[in-house]
Amino acid sequence: MTYEVEMKFPLPSPAEVAAVRERIAALAASAGEVLDQRDAYFAHPSRDFGQTDEVFRLRRVGEQNFLTYKGPVLDAVAKTRREIEVAAAAGSTAADQLLEMLTLLGFRPIGEVVKRRAPFHLSWQGRDLEIVLDDVRDLGWYVELETFAGETDRDAAREVLFDLSRELGLGKSERRSYLRLLLETRGGENGTQLF
Amino acid sequence: MTYEVEMKFPLPSPAEVAAVRERIAALAASAGEVLDQRDAYFAHPSRDFGQTDEVFRLRRVGEQNFLTYKGPVLDAVAKTRREIEVAAAAGSTAADQLLEMLTLLGFRPIGEVVKRRAPFHLSWQGRDLEIVLDDVRDLGWYVELETFAGETDRDAAREVLFDLSRELGLGKSERRSYLRLLLETRGGENGTQLF
Repeated sequence: MTYEVEMKFPLPSPAEVAAVRERIAALAASAGEVLDQRDAYFAHPSRDFGQTDEVFRLRRVGEQNFLTYKGPVLDAVAKTRREIEVAAAAGSTAADQLLEMLTLLGFRPIGEVVKRRAPFHLSWQGRDLEIVLDDVRDLGWYVELETFAGETDRDAAREVLFDLSRELGLGKSERRSYLRLLLETRGGENGTQLF
Repeated sequence: MTYEVEMKFPLPSPAEVAAVRERIAALAASAGEVLDQRDAYFAHPSRDFGQTDEVFRLRRVGEQNFLTYKGPVLDAVAKTRREIEVAAAAGSTAADQLLEMLTLLGFRPIGEVVKRRAPFHLSWQGRDLEIVLDDVRDLGWYVELETFAGETDRDAAREVLFDLSRELGLGKSERRSYLRLLLETRGGENGTQLF
């Protein structure tokens, strides 16, 4: 069973974005391909994902399509949760078909998060880590620290992310998802109910 | 919007299978690749597909995986219904991940239909038609006639299938799905409730 362990930090000023970039470079992290991601999030036909703390989405990265399920967050500080992601046929026709299929099955689209993601990979303290710089439409810049862990090393993985956040000079983490932040920005109450 | 129009006929004896094969050959239909299909059918988390007459399944054809949604049957004799099918990543790992994702989302596996399908394509009366000979595990042989139609030519498509069934010497059609037939064979009441 695979768990995603993740921390996110807002970078409200261009100076902070630049400072994090410098520290990432100092760690000799290798830059991956910059990706344009569009995530359509769904409400469940009968379950309140806001209560169960689950996520179900269709991610589009260029022409690629992915279905992603995330289970409830198991740790209040570093987000630790099960994640299952399966690729679907590529292209906008397949994406439209998936959207239509899910809608017919009673899933309701509740919001879309669009961002440009610059990923960096590094091996640090014996773990494979990912640092991503996200430029999120209507929200601004964030940096996410992420790794995957098994059943037995979730706590160890979280500790490494804490250490990395200090190394990068990051302060208080943001626990809310991009979707929730967007929905709260747009309409307050509605957002908190939905996610 | 695409509709699947379909009729199915049981072939209870080897002689009937052979007779249909001969008539298919006489129509000069072109034989396609024989396929081993495994279809896992799901119950919806909150909707009774038996009432709504919908279908949601994961089809495995060799290493390929497909998600398929079928809407309510719109015609009582020839089955006419919306169908959306989207390919997923290939391989048994992806199939397992999809099963796990759907189960976590509250879909419940209710039965599996395993068959060897011999497809034949022909253009007849101005339509592209498919004839398939199915050897269904635990059920026996069936022949299905199938075509796709748009909003405006569903009735015309149905008429062509009727004509083709007479041309092939087929008698009374079977309206129940393979899954329903299997569930009824296995346990009666449970089957009729679920599908």
